[in-house]
Amino acid sequence: MDRRHLEQLLQSVASGEISPDNAYESLKTLPFEDLGFVNIDQHRTIRTGYPEAVFCQGKTSEQIAIIIAKLVGTNDSVIGSRATKENYEAVLEVVEDAVYYEEARMIVVNRNPKPKSEKIIAIVTAGTADIPVAEEAAITAIMLGNQVDRIYDVGVAGIHRLFAKLDRIRAANVVIVIAGMEGALASVVGGLVETPVIGVPTSIGYGANLGGISALLSMLNSCANGVGIVNIDNGFGAAYLASNINKL
Amino acid sequence: MDRRHLEQLLQSVASGEISPDNAYESLKTLPFEDLGFVNIDQHRTIRTGYPEAVFCQGKTSEQIAIIIAKLVGTNDSVIGSRATKENYEAVLEVVEDAVYYEEARMIVVNRNPKPKSEKIIAIVTAGTADIPVAEEAAITAIMLGNQVDRIYDVGVAGIHRLFAKLDRIRAANVVIVIAGMEGALASVVGGLVETPVIGVPTSIGYGANLGGISALLSMLNSCANGVGIVNIDNGFGAAYLASNINKL
Amino acid sequence: MDRRHLEQLLQSVASGEISPDNAYESLKTLPFEDLGFVNIDQHRTIRTGYPEAVFCQGKTSEQIAIIIAKLVGTNDSVIGSRATKENYEAVLEVVEDAVYYEEARMIVVNRNPKPKSEKIIAIVTAGTADIPVAEEAAITAIMLGNQVDRIYDVGVAGIHRLFAKLDRIRAANVVIVIAGMEGALASVVGGLVETPVIGVPTSIGYGANLGGISALLSMLNSCANGVGIVNIDNGFGAAYLASNINKL
Amino acid sequence: MDRRHLEQLLQSVASGEISPDNAYESLKTLPFEDLGFVNIDQHRTIRTGYPEAVFCQGKTSEQIAIIIAKLVGTNDSVIGSRATKENYEAVLEVVEDAVYYEEARMIVVNRNPKPKSEKIIAIVTAGTADIPVAEEAAITAIMLGNQVDRIYDVGVAGIHRLFAKLDRIRAANVVIVIAGMEGALASVVGGLVETPVIGVPTSIGYGANLGGISALLSMLNSCANGVGIVNIDNGFGAAYLASNINKL
Amino acid sequence: MDRRHLEQLLQSVASGEISPDNAYESLKTLPFEDLGFVNIDQHRTIRTGYPEAVFCQGKTSEQIAIIIAKLVGTNDSVIGSRATKENYEAVLEVVEDAVYYEEARMIVVNRNPKPKSEKIIAIVTAGTADIPVAEEAAITAIMLGNQVDRIYDVGVAGIHRLFAKLDRIRAANVVIVIAGMEGALASVVGGLVETPVIGVPTSIGYGANLGGISALLSMLNSCANGVGIVNIDNGFGAAYLASNINKL
Amino acid sequence: MDRRHLEQLLQSVASGEISPDNAYESLKTLPFEDLGFVNIDQHRTIRTGYPEAVFCQGKTSEQIAIIIAKLVGTNDSVIGSRATKENYEAVLEVVEDAVYYEEARMIVVNRNPKPKSEKIIAIVTAGTADIPVAEEAAITAIMLGNQVDRIYDVGVAGIHRLFAKLDRIRAANVVIVIAGMEGALASVVGGLVETPVIGVPTSIGYGANLGGISALLSMLNSCANGVGIVNIDNGFGAAYLASNINKL
Amino acid sequence: MDRRHLEQLLQSVASGEISPDNAYESLKTLPFEDLGFVNIDQHRTIRTGYPEAVFCQGKTSEQIAIIIAKLVGTNDSVIGSRATKENYEAVLEVVEDAVYYEEARMIVVNRNPKPKSEKIIAIVTAGTADIPVAEEAAITAIMLGNQVDRIYDVGVAGIHRLFAKLDRIRAANVVIVIAGMEGALASVVGGLVETPVIGVPTSIGYGANLGGISALLSMLNSCANGVGIVNIDNGFGAAYLASNINKL
Amino acid sequence: MDRRHLEQLLQSVASGEISPDNAYESLKTLPFEDLGFVNIDQHRTIRTGYPEAVFCQGKTSEQIAIIIAKLVGTNDSVIGSRATKENYEAVLEVVEDAVYYEEARMIVVNRNPKPKSEKIIAIVTAGTADIPVAEEAAITAIMLGNQVDRIYDVGVAGIHRLFAKLDRIRAANVVIVIAGMEGALASVVGGLVETPVIGVPTSIGYGANLGGISALLSMLNSCANGVGIVNIDNGFGAAYLASNINKL
Repeated sequence: MDRRHLEQLLQSVASGEISPDNAYESLKTLPFEDLGFVNIDQHRTIRTGYPEAVFCQGKTSEQIAIIIAKLVGTNDSVIGSRATKENYEAVLEVVEDAVYYEEARMIVVNRNPKPKSEKIIAIVTAGTADIPVAEEAAITAIMLGNQVDRIYDVGVAGIHRLFAKLDRIRAANVVIVIAGMEGALASVVGGLVETPVIGVPTSIGYGANLGGISALLSMLNSCANGVGIVNIDNGFGAAYLASNINKL
Repeated sequence: MDRRHLEQLLQSVASGEISPDNAYESLKTLPFEDLGFVNIDQHRTIRTGYPEAVFCQGKTSEQIAIIIAKLVGTNDSVIGSRATKENYEAVLEVVEDAVYYEEARMIVVNRNPKPKSEKIIAIVTAGTADIPVAEEAAITAIMLGNQVDRIYDVGVAGIHRLFAKLDRIRAANVVIVIAGMEGALASVVGGLVETPVIGVPTSIGYGANLGGISALLSMLNSCANGVGIVNIDNGFGAAYLASNINKL
Repeated sequence: MDRRHLEQLLQSVASGEISPDNAYESLKTLPFEDLGFVNIDQHRTIRTGYPEAVFCQGKTSEQIAIIIAKLVGTNDSVIGSRATKENYEAVLEVVEDAVYYEEARMIVVNRNPKPKSEKIIAIVTAGTADIPVAEEAAITAIMLGNQVDRIYDVGVAGIHRLFAKLDRIRAANVVIVIAGMEGALASVVGGLVETPVIGVPTSIGYGANLGGISALLSMLNSCANGVGIVNIDNGFGAAYLASNINKL
Repeated sequence: MDRRHLEQLLQSVASGEISPDNAYESLKTLPFEDLGFVNIDQHRTIRTGYPEAVFCQGKTSEQIAIIIAKLVGTNDSVIGSRATKENYEAVLEVVEDAVYYEEARMIVVNRNPKPKSEKIIAIVTAGTADIPVAEEAAITAIMLGNQVDRIYDVGVAGIHRLFAKLDRIRAANVVIVIAGMEGALASVVGGLVETPVIGVPTSIGYGANLGGISALLSMLNSCANGVGIVNIDNGFGAAYLASNINKL
Repeated sequence: MDRRHLEQLLQSVASGEISPDNAYESLKTLPFEDLGFVNIDQHRTIRTGYPEAVFCQGKTSEQIAIIIAKLVGTNDSVIGSRATKENYEAVLEVVEDAVYYEEARMIVVNRNPKPKSEKIIAIVTAGTADIPVAEEAAITAIMLGNQVDRIYDVGVAGIHRLFAKLDRIRAANVVIVIAGMEGALASVVGGLVETPVIGVPTSIGYGANLGGISALLSMLNSCANGVGIVNIDNGFGAAYLASNINKL
Repeated sequence: MDRRHLEQLLQSVASGEISPDNAYESLKTLPFEDLGFVNIDQHRTIRTGYPEAVFCQGKTSEQIAIIIAKLVGTNDSVIGSRATKENYEAVLEVVEDAVYYEEARMIVVNRNPKPKSEKIIAIVTAGTADIPVAEEAAITAIMLGNQVDRIYDVGVAGIHRLFAKLDRIRAANVVIVIAGMEGALASVVGGLVETPVIGVPTSIGYGANLGGISALLSMLNSCANGVGIVNIDNGFGAAYLASNINKL
Repeated sequence: MDRRHLEQLLQSVASGEISPDNAYESLKTLPFEDLGFVNIDQHRTIRTGYPEAVFCQGKTSEQIAIIIAKLVGTNDSVIGSRATKENYEAVLEVVEDAVYYEEARMIVVNRNPKPKSEKIIAIVTAGTADIPVAEEAAITAIMLGNQVDRIYDVGVAGIHRLFAKLDRIRAANVVIVIAGMEGALASVVGGLVETPVIGVPTSIGYGANLGGISALLSMLNSCANGVGIVNIDNGFGAAYLASNINKL
Repeated sequence: MDRRHLEQLLQSVASGEISPDNAYESLKTLPFEDLGFVNIDQHRTIRTGYPEAVFCQGKTSEQIAIIIAKLVGTNDSVIGSRATKENYEAVLEVVEDAVYYEEARMIVVNRNPKPKSEKIIAIVTAGTADIPVAEEAAITAIMLGNQVDRIYDVGVAGIHRLFAKLDRIRAANVVIVIAGMEGALASVVGGLVETPVIGVPTSIGYGANLGGISALLSMLNSCANGVGIVNIDNGFGAAYLASNINKL
C-alpha cells in the first residue's frame, strides 16, 4: 500500500465508506513496505538514483538473467557483482546492452548515465593482485555517480611509491585502500590523510594470510584513526560506503 | 626544519652563503617532518582544531600525567582515552582543570571549547552494556566538534524499540552503531538509513561471543551496504572517522 | 500508540475531527510499538505471563537494583540472571522479597506463582561442574511455569549412569542436555529420545576445551537429529526455548 | 530379538523348555537392540512413521543405491540427503519410483504419503542463495508429515520484506530461520515470534564469513531468547527438530 | 538389578510366580547398570584395584571433602586431582590420613598400597616448567600400581640432554612425554623408542603458544609413529592410559 | 658405519694400523646412524619385522615407484600409504606383486607374511564414511602382524548398535575408535573398556566440523580416561601405536 | 627527480633563474623517490646486484610475460617466483633465454651470473615433500649470489639422519630449516648451531596441520634461541633474509 | 666422557688394556654429550662468552634464586628474563651484585663486562607500550656484547616520525622491529633497509589484536623481504638472533 492507497483508505474512513474498525484491521496487518516509506530498496533506488545491484555469486546464470532482465524494465541502471563470464553471456541474451567488466567481474547496464560528482574517490591498492577488488570498487563507484582516481601498486614495502602519489590521494574526498598481505597500507594512508579512509582487506597471498584474515586483522588494529573496514574482497561495499559519504 | 627554515636555506643558496652542494646534502637528509607538511600529528592538530589524544592503556599514571601536562602547554584541548580513575588522579595533580568521564573512561582537558558542527552523529547501541563504548565515542565526537544524539538499548531482539527511534537516527549525518552479542544491529540500521554507518563491535557477552569476534564477524558480513567497521570496543576510532566524515 | 489510541484516531477521522492528511502524517511516523501488537517485550510479558528478565552481567549493582525495583512495580515476577551476591544485596535493599539462588546466580521475585504446566522439562548434566548452568536453566524453567526434573552427572564416560535414568528422561516433554568437556552427551541423549533436545555446551574443562568451544562444536556436529543448540553456558536461553516448546 | 522373541523366550522359561540359567545367559549378552525397545532407529521408524534417512555425502553411488534399495524393502518412505544427481541416477536403476529434488539435493522415495499435520513449519531465508538449504529443510519436513510455508529472501538489510511476511511467520507452529552472511535474521525473528525458532547458519558468503562460522556465531549470540541452532547448512536436522516439536 | 536379582526374576517366571508379561515389563525398563555388568566405574574399581578419582577443579572445598570422605568408606585409595591447598585442608578435616602433593596438585588417600608392577613408566619433560603436569602423571601412575622413572628438562633445544638419558627412556615399558612450547620432544622421543609414547602438551609458554594449542598441534603432527596424545596439561589421563597399557 | 665396521676400526687401533688420534677423529664425526644402533628406521625394520612405510601424498608417482622398488630390494614387506590408484599403477610397472587396497588407499608388498599375533586390535567406526580411515588402520595393523576385528558404523546416535558389539570390542587387546562428526564415540567406548583406546578423529562431515577439528577437540576433551589421540584421518599412526602396544 | 635534477634546481636558485619561493614549492611536493635515496627498489637492485623479483601467483601469464620482458631490458637478472609452467611458456615467447625450475616453480633470467659468495647457506628439510619450498629458497639464494648446500629429508622422527649431516650444517654461515608437519626440526637445529637459523614452515601434511599453521606455531614457540621465522612456504623470503645476512 | 677420556679409552685399546669388544660396548652406549662436542649449552657459553640465561616465568622465586646462584659460580654473567621484582628480591639474597631492570623484567649479573662489538643493533618500536619488550631485547643484546640504538615510538600511523630516524636505523647492522597493533612497522622498515630485520610482534592492544596474533600475522605476511619473525613479546629471542647475526 503506497501513499496514494493509504490516503484513499483514510478518505474512505472520512467519508464513511469504511468503518474505523475495518480500517484498523487493514492498518494493523499492513505490510510495512506498503506505507511507501519502508520499502527501502525501492525508495533508495528512486531517491538516490543508485542502480539496483545483484550479488551474482551463488545464483545460476538463468536466475541472474531473469533478475537483471526484470530490473532493467523499471531501472535505468543495474549492477551485477561477482559475475562470471558465463553469467554475463546468459544476461546478454536477454539484455542486449549489458556490458561486462572482466577484471571487476561485473555486469553493468547503464542506460542513462548520470552526471558525475565533482568529488573524487581515490582507490589505492598495495599490489597488482589486488586490482580485481579495486576494479569492483571503481566500477561500482562510477555507477553510483562518483569520480574515481585509481592509484595501484603502492604497497608499503616500497613506500616511496606511495609518497609519489600522495598529492593525488590527498586530493580525494574519500580514500579506499585495498591491500592483501600488506594490510599495513591502510594504517600508513590513514596517517597521511585527513579524509575518511575505507579499508578493504583482500584474500591475496598465501600461507599465514588465512584467506585475507591477516590483512583484515591488521587493518582493524590500525593505529591510524579515521579508518573503517569492510569485508574481505568487498570492493562493492567499500564503494557504496564511499559514495554515501560523497553524497553528504 | 619548518617552512621558515627551508625558505632561509633557499635564501642562503640564492645569496651564495651556502653552496648548492651543501644545500643538497642538507636537503637529502632532511627529516621528513621538518618540511612542515609531513609532521602530520602536529599539522593535523593545528589545522583541524582536533585535540591531541593519548591512549592511556599500557602506560603508567606517571607517564600519562607527564604527557598530558606537556600537551596542555601547547594545545587547548587534550583527550586521554582508556584511562582509569587512578590515571586521572595523577593527571589532576598536574592539570587542575582536567575532567574525568567515568563511563567513557576518558580524561578531558578542554580550555577553549569550539563551536559545534550543525551535523549530528547518532550513536546507537544494542544494549545497556554497550554504553561505555558508546560514551567513549560520544565524548570523543563532542571533543572533535560534533553534535551527538545518543540512542541507547535498541537491539534487534525487540526491534520495535529501534523503529521508535528511527526518525532521530535518520536525522543524523553519520550513524555509529555499537553492539556486542547482537552485531545484527549494524545490518538492520544499515538497511534503514542512507547515511554512512560505522559499526563498532563490542566485547560484551559470554561464551561463543569470543571477546567480540562474533559481533565483529557479524558486522563484516552484513548484507547492508554502506557500513564500515572499526576494531572491537574502539569507540574513539569510530567517533574520529565519523568526525572526519562530518567535516567534509 | 496502543489499540485504543489507534481506534480513537480512526474515530476522529471518521468524525471529521482530524483530516485524513493529518492522520496520514501520524500513521506514517507512528512508532512501531504504539500499534499495540509490536511492542513485543511488553506484549509477551502480558500475554504469556513470562516474567521480565534482566541480564545482570556488565551492569552495576545500582543499575540492577533500579531496574528490578522498577519492573516489580508492573510485573508479578522478575528474573535477574548472571547476578552476583553483591548484586542481590543491592536489590534486596529496594525489593524486600527478592530471593537469591546462589548456584544458579539468579535473583528472583515471584509474587504470584503461576500454576505449573503438566509437561516436564528434563535437565540433564554430564558432570557436577555443569550444575550452575543447569540450575540457571532449572530456575528459569520453573519461573516460566514449567515442571523440572533434574538429572545430574550422567556423562557418557560411565554410560550406565545415563541408562539408569532413561525412563525419567523419556518421560519429559523436552530435554535440556548440559555438558562441558563431554559434549558427547547431547548426541547420545538425542539418539535415545524422540522429544526435542536442547544442548547447552558449558565452559567447564581445561586445555583444548577452549572455553566451551569444543563442547559447542561437538554438539553442533552431533549425528543425532532433533537437537538444537544454544550459546555456551546459556542455561537461561535453553529454558526459555524449552518453555516455548512446552507451551505449544 | 524383538518383542515377540523375548516373549517366546520368557514363555519357554515358564514352560520349562529353557532353564533360568540359560535364559540369564541369553539376556545378559542380549544385543541391546534385540529387546525391541532399544533398536531406536528401527523403533523410531515404526512408531513415528518417520522415513529412514541416508546421509549420502561421503558414500559412493553404488553404496547409496544398495542402501536405499534395501531400505525400501521394509519402509514406505526413504530420504537420501546431500545426494548428487549422479547418486540419484544410480538409485534410479534399482528403485524406479525414486524422485530427485535437485535444489534440495535429496533423493526421496515416498510410497505411502502420510496425512499432513495441521501445524505449519515456516521456513524463512535471508537470501536467495540460502534456498538449497531451505529446500533440504522443506522436503525433509514434508516427508516427516508436516506442512511447510516457504518465506524466502527476507533478510534484515531490507527489513520491510520481513515485516510484510510477519503474519505468515507468526501463523507457524515452529519457525526455521536460514541465513548465511546475515545470521542477524534469527535474532530479529526470535524477537518477533513466541514460537520456537530453529536457526540454520549457512556457508553462503565470502571473506570473513569463514564458511558459515560467522553466521553460526552470530546466531549463537542472539539476544533473542527461544532460538536453538543446528550445524551450518544442516537443513535436514532443523526440519527433524521442528518436526519433533510439531509432534508434541 | 544385579545378577542375583535377575536370576531370582527368572526363577519366579520358571515357578509361575511372575507371568512372562510382567517379567517382560521389568526387563524392558531394567536400568542398565543393574544387570551387574554395566556399572562400569564400580566394577572397574573393584576389579582393577584402581583408586577412585575425583576431578576437584570446579568443585567447592566442601563438595570435595564430602565426596572423598564418602569414597574412603568403601575404597582403600582415592585420588583428588587439580586440588588446591585449600581443597586439601577441607579434606584433611574429615580424612586424617589424606596427603597433599603440592607440585602435582593432588590429594591422595592410600590405605593399602598395592605391590608395584615391574614395568616402568618413563615420564619425560622438555622443561622445568612442565614438572607440575609431570608430577600429576607420576603420582597418578604410582597410585595405579606402576613404577615411575622421572626424566625432567631434556628438551630438544639442547638435545644432548635427551641423549644422555636415552638408556633410561628405552628401559621403560611406556613413555609419557610432557612438553609445552617444545612439543617437538614427542616427535624426537617417538623416533628413538619402540615402546608406546603418550604425548601431553602443556600450557606452558607465552605468545603464540596459545595456551598449549601450539604444542598440541605440534604433537598431533608428529612424523614419528607410535605416539598418542591426551588433552593439554592432562597428566592424569596420560598416566591412566600408560597404566592401562602396562597392565596388558 | 655398522657394527662390523666399528669393530674393524677398533681392531685396527688394537693392531696399531690406526693411531688413537685418527680413530678419535673418525669417531668424533661418526654419523650417528653408522654406530648400528641409531639408524632407527633400519634397525626398527630389522628387529621388529615391521615393513618399511612410505607416505605417498605429496610425492610424484615416479618418486613413489623408485622408492618402493628400492625398498623391496632389501625388505620383505613395504607399505605405501595415502596412495592414489595412479601411484599404484606406476609402482606396478616396477614391482609386479604390489597390491592396491583402494578403500584404504594403500599399496602393499608382502612377500613373506609373518605369523599373526594372538592379540586382537578392534577397529571401531562411528559411521560408514569413516571406513577409508579404518581400512588404512586395518591394513596397517595386519601388515604389522596383528589380528584385526572390524566393527563399523556403531556411532552413538544409535547407541544400541554399539552395545550389540560390546563383547567383541571388549575381547580386543587394544581398541582404535575412528569417528568424524561423532567424536563422542571415543568417550563412550573409553568408558566401557579397560584396554587402551586410540582415538582417530576423521575429517568426515560438513559445516562446523572444521575438517575434523571438532572431532579432534571432542576426543581430546573426553571424560573417559585411557584414551590417546592421533592426528585427523591418521589411521596408519593409530595402527602403528596399537601394534606397539600389542607387541609389549 | 634524481640527484642531477636536484643539483640543477639548486644551481638555478643560485643563479637566480628560479626564485627561492618557487624552489620551495617544487621541493615541498617533490616525489619522495626523486631524491634518489628513497626509490628503494631501484636503488637496491643497482647497489646490491640483486635481481628484480616478480611474484607470479595471482597474475595472468600475459601480465607476467610483459613485466619480465620489461625488466630484462634494464636488469641482468630477473626472478619470477610461484610461476606455473604455463606462465613460463608465455615468458619464453618474449624472453628466449628464460629458464624454468619446475620443482622450485621459478622462472629465471640470468644474463650475467655474479661471482658466488664464499659463505654457504645450508638449506635443510624435514621431508621430501618440503623440497619444492626448499628449491625455491635454493634457486633464490643462488640468484642472489650465495653458495647453497642442500640437506634434505633429515626430519627429527629419525634424528640420526640429521646428526649424520651436522658437520655440513655447521659449516654454513646461515641455515634455512624447512619443515611441514615436523616443525620440530627448527628447534633441534637451532639448538645445535650457533649461526642464524631461518625457519620456513610448510603447508605439507594433513588433518591438524591446518595448512602449515601447526608448523608455524611450533617454530615460533621453539625453545631454541636464534631462530627467525618467515611465512608458510615462503622459501623466497627465507633466502632473501639469509642473503642479507650473508652480505654483512 | 670428554675428549680426554675418549683418548684414554683409545690409548687403552692401542695398548691392549681394553679389548676392542669392550671398547665397542662403551662407545655404543656413550652418552652423546660426553664426547665433549655435543653438550651444546655448556659449549656455547664457553666459546661465545654468551651469558647463561634463565627463563623465570613459571618458576618459583626459590627455584630462580637457586639456579642463578649456582650459575654465577661458573659463569661471569647470567641473565634472568621474565622476572618479577619478587623473583629479583629472592635472587638478591644469594647474589648480592644482581641487578634488576624493571621495565625489561630482567635480572642481570655481569661480573666481567665484555668489550662491545662495533656493530649496532637498532631496536625500533611502534609505540610506547611496546617498550618493555624492547627493553628486554636491549638488555639482552647488550649482555651478549652488542651496541644498541633505541628508537622508540615511530609507528606508521605518523610515518614522518620513522623517516626522521631513518639514518640511525640504516646505520645499524641488524634492526629489531617491535610492534603490537601496528605490525605494519616491520613491513615499512623492511622496505627501507638492506640489513636483516627481525620482527617481534607484541601483545599490546585490544579487541581484534587477539593477544598479538594480529601483529604476528601481519609481520609474517609482510611484502618486504628480509624480515624474520620471532614469537610474540619475545624480545630475548630477537636479541639473541640479532647477536648471532652480528657475530658472523
